[in-house]
Amino acid sequence: MTVKKSMQELDRADVDTFRSADKFPLVLILDQVRSGLNVGSLFRTADAFAIEKIVCVGYTPCPPHREVLKTALGSAQSVEWRQVENIQEEISSLRSRGYQIMALEQVHNSMPLQEWSAPRVPIALIVGNEVSGVSDEALAWCDGFLEITQYGTKHSLNVAVSGGMAIYHIIQQWSAASLKS
Amino acid sequence: MTVKKSMQELDRADVDTFRSADKFPLVLILDQVRSGLNVGSLFRTADAFAIEKIVCVGYTPCPPHREVLKTALGSAQSVEWRQVENIQEEISSLRSRGYQIMALEQVHNSMPLQEWSAPRVPIALIVGNEVSGVSDEALAWCDGFLEITQYGTKHSLNVAVSGGMAIYHIIQQWSAASLKS
Repeated sequence: MTVKKSMQELDRADVDTFRSADKFPLVLILDQVRSGLNVGSLFRTADAFAIEKIVCVGYTPCPPHREVLKTALGSAQSVEWRQVENIQEEISSLRSRGYQIMALEQVHNSMPLQEWSAPRVPIALIVGNEVSGVSDEALAWCDGFLEITQYGTKHSLNVAVSGGMAIYHIIQQWSAASLKS
Repeated sequence: MTVKKSMQELDRADVDTFRSADKFPLVLILDQVRSGLNVGSLFRTADAFAIEKIVCVGYTPCPPHREVLKTALGSAQSVEWRQVENIQEEISSLRSRGYQIMALEQVHNSMPLQEWSAPRVPIALIVGNEVSGVSDEALAWCDGFLEITQYGTKHSLNVAVSGGMAIYHIIQQWSAASLKS
């Protein structure tokens, strides 16, 4: 009989242990994301993949916003985050500390996510607003652009889903290389 | 200047063209998913990756449920779907037509998704309820089990996010092999 793993068997960290544990050097930047439900879902994904930090830019709702907490399911306690007003200052600061700045956006010179080998350097991944995407002011400061190849009728994927795919893509490569610090 | 692709440049299909176009041979089975918002989000992902069909099992809300339509954003029109009561009959029928039946679930003998090479055969991917996961009756009939390796404090990922990662994982391999029919 096929038996599900219990919470004990899954061996998840408690919040204190998690906060002091090594993380993957990935910062997720939420550039004017509108929906708290999407933000909370991205917190939950950030927890699951032990990424370094979430940065909420501008009007992006952040904890303890009610909708954020609803879908974060406790991960707003475990994931490190900060709120900033100016995305260009944040990008400059991250770049000066060696981060490669990548936007998840369908632009003229974007590269298919699935063909992209994540470099073994710290990465800042920018995802954007549900309707307008990553802001032009952020795009102007990026090192590269990633696009999820799509075959359907709709313009785009939900941002919590597409952000999740990009995080999965990066961490599956880094975990094979044990890039946690 | 970095310029976003317009809807025209993205060259998406209209609904009629999409419905008659080749699809990837992937059937997504929603095993007692509770939230219409999650179902709608999975419809949107199913559209983006041109998968064959969604099967809503049991009480899983399906179109035209209000919450489903809210997050499906029109993809309930483009994606083929059906509703069934009995998941074992559905699995039997799919298996007899050559589908490999895979559950996305954390079980004792599951394999890490990122290490799994999707075979070049039709696949039925089962995702489960937000709290209880894939049902035991479905697990009993699966050919294999996939688990997304997690490093955080929470039990699991949101089902629309984890289902999206699994679909991304499969289609990125199939698209490299041009497996659409």
